[in-house]
Amino acid sequence: MNDLHGVAGVPMRWVGPLKISGNVATTETEVPLATYESPLWPSVGRGAKISRQTERGIVATLVDERMTRSVLVEAEDAQTAYAATRRIDAQFDDLNKVVRACSGFAELVGIRHEIAANLLFIRFEFTTGDASGHNMATLAADALLGHILENIPGVSYGSISGNYCTDKKATAVNGILGRGKNVVTELLVPRSVVTEMLHTTAAKIAELNLRKNLIGTLLAGGIRSANSHYANMLLAFYLATGQDAANIVEGSQGVTVAEDRDGDLYFSCTLPNLIVGTVGNGKDLDFVEANLTRLGCRAEREPGENARRLAVIAAATVLCGELSTMAALTNPGELMRAHIHLERKQGEYSSNG
Amino acid sequence: MNDLHGVAGVPMRWVGPLKISGNVATTETEVPLATYESPLWPSVGRGAKISRQTERGIVATLVDERMTRSVLVEAEDAQTAYAATRRIDAQFDDLNKVVRACSGFAELVGIRHEIAANLLFIRFEFTTGDASGHNMATLAADALLGHILENIPGVSYGSISGNYCTDKKATAVNGILGRGKNVVTELLVPRSVVTEMLHTTAAKIAELNLRKNLIGTLLAGGIRSANSHYANMLLAFYLATGQDAANIVEGSQGVTVAEDRDGDLYFSCTLPNLIVGTVGNGKDLDFVEANLTRLGCRAEREPGENARRLAVIAAATVLCGELSTMAALTNPGELMRAHIHLERKQGEYSSNG
Amino acid sequence: MNDLHGVAGVPMRWVGPLKISGNVATTETEVPLATYESPLWPSVGRGAKISRQTERGIVATLVDERMTRSVLVEAEDAQTAYAATRRIDAQFDDLNKVVRACSGFAELVGIRHEIAANLLFIRFEFTTGDASGHNMATLAADALLGHILENIPGVSYGSISGNYCTDKKATAVNGILGRGKNVVTELLVPRSVVTEMLHTTAAKIAELNLRKNLIGTLLAGGIRSANSHYANMLLAFYLATGQDAANIVEGSQGVTVAEDRDGDLYFSCTLPNLIVGTVGNGKDLDFVEANLTRLGCRAEREPGENARRLAVIAAATVLCGELSTMAALTNPGELMRAHIHLERKQGEYSSNG
Amino acid sequence: MNDLHGVAGVPMRWVGPLKISGNVATTETEVPLATYESPLWPSVGRGAKISRQTERGIVATLVDERMTRSVLVEAEDAQTAYAATRRIDAQFDDLNKVVRACSGFAELVGIRHEIAANLLFIRFEFTTGDASGHNMATLAADALLGHILENIPGVSYGSISGNYCTDKKATAVNGILGRGKNVVTELLVPRSVVTEMLHTTAAKIAELNLRKNLIGTLLAGGIRSANSHYANMLLAFYLATGQDAANIVEGSQGVTVAEDRDGDLYFSCTLPNLIVGTVGNGKDLDFVEANLTRLGCRAEREPGENARRLAVIAAATVLCGELSTMAALTNPGELMRAHIHLERKQGEYSSNG
Repeated sequence: MNDLHGVAGVPMRWVGPLKISGNVATTETEVPLATYESPLWPSVGRGAKISRQTERGIVATLVDERMTRSVLVEAEDAQTAYAATRRIDAQFDDLNKVVRACSGFAELVGIRHEIAANLLFIRFEFTTGDASGHNMATLAADALLGHILENIPGVSYGSISGNYCTDKKATAVNGILGRGKNVVTELLVPRSVVTEMLHTTAAKIAELNLRKNLIGTLLAGGIRSANSHYANMLLAFYLATGQDAANIVEGSQGVTVAEDRDGDLYFSCTLPNLIVGTVGNGKDLDFVEANLTRLGCRAEREPGENARRLAVIAAATVLCGELSTMAALTNPGELMRAHIHLERKQGEYSSNG
Repeated sequence: MNDLHGVAGVPMRWVGPLKISGNVATTETEVPLATYESPLWPSVGRGAKISRQTERGIVATLVDERMTRSVLVEAEDAQTAYAATRRIDAQFDDLNKVVRACSGFAELVGIRHEIAANLLFIRFEFTTGDASGHNMATLAADALLGHILENIPGVSYGSISGNYCTDKKATAVNGILGRGKNVVTELLVPRSVVTEMLHTTAAKIAELNLRKNLIGTLLAGGIRSANSHYANMLLAFYLATGQDAANIVEGSQGVTVAEDRDGDLYFSCTLPNLIVGTVGNGKDLDFVEANLTRLGCRAEREPGENARRLAVIAAATVLCGELSTMAALTNPGELMRAHIHLERKQGEYSSNG
Repeated sequence: MNDLHGVAGVPMRWVGPLKISGNVATTETEVPLATYESPLWPSVGRGAKISRQTERGIVATLVDERMTRSVLVEAEDAQTAYAATRRIDAQFDDLNKVVRACSGFAELVGIRHEIAANLLFIRFEFTTGDASGHNMATLAADALLGHILENIPGVSYGSISGNYCTDKKATAVNGILGRGKNVVTELLVPRSVVTEMLHTTAAKIAELNLRKNLIGTLLAGGIRSANSHYANMLLAFYLATGQDAANIVEGSQGVTVAEDRDGDLYFSCTLPNLIVGTVGNGKDLDFVEANLTRLGCRAEREPGENARRLAVIAAATVLCGELSTMAALTNPGELMRAHIHLERKQGEYSSNG
Repeated sequence: MNDLHGVAGVPMRWVGPLKISGNVATTETEVPLATYESPLWPSVGRGAKISRQTERGIVATLVDERMTRSVLVEAEDAQTAYAATRRIDAQFDDLNKVVRACSGFAELVGIRHEIAANLLFIRFEFTTGDASGHNMATLAADALLGHILENIPGVSYGSISGNYCTDKKATAVNGILGRGKNVVTELLVPRSVVTEMLHTTAAKIAELNLRKNLIGTLLAGGIRSANSHYANMLLAFYLATGQDAANIVEGSQGVTVAEDRDGDLYFSCTLPNLIVGTVGNGKDLDFVEANLTRLGCRAEREPGENARRLAVIAAATVLCGELSTMAALTNPGELMRAHIHLERKQGEYSSNG
């Protein structure tokens, strides 16, 4: 390392393979995880192994995708702000032309707005091809804002970002209106696998999920989130694939659902705010290119297909780690023993959460 | 990189130095930031430069520190749960003995509990020396839980973590009850510096902060947070110093306050949930040791002093990036121009948020 | 009072008149307030008096209206849930026919949905004429749910209400997607009136609003709310006009904005979730009919016009009480003195909050 | 009704009796409910009837009580604010003397504080005898604030209320730190009663609770709340007993838990923020006095005992209505049929939520 330029070398391993199906990809793939918390690898690895014991693997359903940027404009008063919203809605097609002129990959797919006093927050929603789309959305929002300030009377510049986007903050708006990929993952684990590989029962996991993830997070004052440790898996996956890992803040807001289905375990992770891309900032580093290629996310496909593939793999990875930790937590002392054990040797289980 | 073992080499630069004073450290220090988002470096760098134009620099006040873990126990009924809380409170000294037996660095400093139905969530609060304390807290909580299950009638194991801790989730409990270091940073920027180096006015920044960070985040449904992009600075600082960067989820919940004081700018970032350590997982990597040493956080000091120093440096780094971006956002087009400019050359300003 | 049937006689007074303008009504009207907290009357009365000192009075802008009910259906899996959402969106016109067959006043104006695991929450949005619309929306949702269960494969009954509506709970969804009337009120108070009638300055009120309503509520872990005591005014107005006053829970989520405009005070209350009606449950009681008539909300008008008029009067009433209390709070001891004074005589100021 | 003075006569009925046991009261009592929503009466009535079929009735455990008021002071800087907190903590006994001088019933039981920038929010916690304590707490806080401003250097008046109390807003702080009575109610309903009187199964209610109250509210962006319609019962009970019903805003934040215990139903409602009193504002109205007397809450007892009795009756009433509605919702169409039926005749079931 010289004085000013260097790298932070975060330890990285490939684990898996994970078995994945659903409406985006049917695949078995290993995944790269970069982390300082080594227990994460065997934890995800155990989940991956379980996925391979099942008929359909982890079924990942992508239900939405969009990138957003909210601008803030100040109106003369609320009446003017309201009039502006009506004009903006009426000019949707014109505004989309402005967006298309910015980028061949951006498309305006929705506009939402909210007024508080004389302030108008306008949330633009775009599709952005294979890019996560932060910069593309900001560029397009900048052009849209310019267009609005020129064409709509009584409004003036407030901010290119009004925090109603919302980028890298845990809020409710992203889940409710959509930001990033919204992926639901599901895994049906046969009773025998629950017993032998997770050393627990479906009923115990379902009960723990209710008490810890739903009630516990609620009491803690959480917002739109009920899970054990999505943030751990997302961070490691994001670092290994060149993502802007600060997006784990909203990305880790998600809901784990577990059901005892006659002894089999239905286990599901819903991640409404997954922000990933296969092109853009950070993606041209050699190891990132190698990783994305190995994940099959640099193939010749329609724009957006590679990013969607990456999103479902990320979501499946989250499920693997979540399942493993939740199982471990049903057994008194197991998590602690695993951590102590792992100080010497990479063991089987789980990380904190 | 061989097949399974490698590193994710996140680009890292030192920026600064930052001028810092306050109740923990008086220093000028550069800081290492590892990120895929290169505009972050000049953004923090500009803030650092401004800190050096001021008399006291960034004044960082550490107001609290503790690491927590909440266990979950199931009681026969609420009456039993309530009786258990009274016994637990009465046994504080005994419980602290259990903690001290686990580690020479852990100390029990508080217990909080909450009952929902027949479920009892017990939140243990520890000091943990120079470690961030995740593992120390889990180890101690495991021992405490064992002690409680043996000594208090009518309760049984629920989970070693009940999500009332709360680790790596954005909730309200951490700020209200405390988790990690609680650091307030303040910087008083003379009017002339605001004009010449930030190209704006104190009034404009104060107004933007009200509208974007406070009202905008509120409308977005945020929880205990009002800032532009703390997550970006924290991620980069955490990666460069071997922290568990998934803690940016709660770490980035914080409040920016900006005031126009007769043309001078009062700018403050409050970070109630900063989780950092100078020993433990990730700290034995060569570059991490080098970075911590260069930051002056591996000196011979009382246990906890190095970690507190690291915390105030982290918080000051956040202020630098926040100030720079907020200033840029007051000028239409500046953020966008800076990003475009930086695609060719590392420029002066800011990253998204 | 006989044994089982009686009335709870809540003390009621008319205060005002309030001066109101905007896109719904231009009027001067007194308002009835029923409350056990007598300081509320002079508090609102002071605000009303101030409104009459201004040129335009309280300018109320109604920016949206809709009543919602979310049903919950269970799908075989997420894939099926996703397919169902696409069918539902495609059948919007058919679904609206189902709604129109339920009621001559209900109209389907939007459908939103969210999937978690295999659960599908469908949020129907209606206009409901002059009714607040709880029952109309439930009736229509019941019919829509029946239609969906018959026509869309793979889904079964979950609940006629999935708490994603959201009725009588403080959440983020109502403000973001809309529920009830969304009304912004604004009042520009000349500097001389601020001084003479509020005994304070615009700067002091603006500063207090930032610190108490925005930062204080944020630290408390509030959700989409920043005000001093909207709940007090809403409760009293709702009781006096036959509303379901449990809707103050979400109705009181709103944002106060105050600005010092060269010594004049810009004061605004945004109430995104005002649920009011002029027909339906509770509206046929004699005193309610009399009150609604006196408010001019039982006139022969287009369906919906009376309810919108009631909404802006409610919102203006909130502003009056909020302004008066905020002003009082800027003066140390004023609130307390007013309360003590009012124990003997109905005085001038404000209630708790 | 004359022009300015009158009453809003809210229809009121007594329903029950409810069977109640626990650590505060063992009783069978009818309860008065004042509401414009008549389906509420049979809904609560059904729950009450079920309580009488069980051995212990509704077991109500009061686990905490305190009334709070947060003051806001401005410090010269964060360092000064921090120093102030240390002095305040050290002066607890002196501060309690200040409180006792204000009222023979108020007692200081805790102080919490939080710093943001140079702002210091101090949350005082009191016991207040049989009063709900709003005014007593404000009076005491006013005296404490005066004492602090005189005795602690570097701080000045901000506000007598800093919204960190938090009064009549839905936040996280009240549940986490405590405000009002914290009451947990539990009812174990035998399988046969579930079948015959609720026409459903324990499993169905448990599943609905998970999906609607926990997951549905979470997706809606709720804060510390998971129930169907606590607000309805609280409003009606509060109006009938002279409470400040605006406190339903935070009072209705609570958690329903339902479990299938071998076919029997375990049903629990936790209400952490119940604010009730038997003396004070509104309690001297004739019908209120009569109602409180009939509820057994005007007896000669130790200060606080009457208010605690009222709190557990309120909480048990909430459980009755919640149970009835949740059961109805498990059966497609039942809620709607009940509402239509009730337009002609008071039927059996439930109100919206």
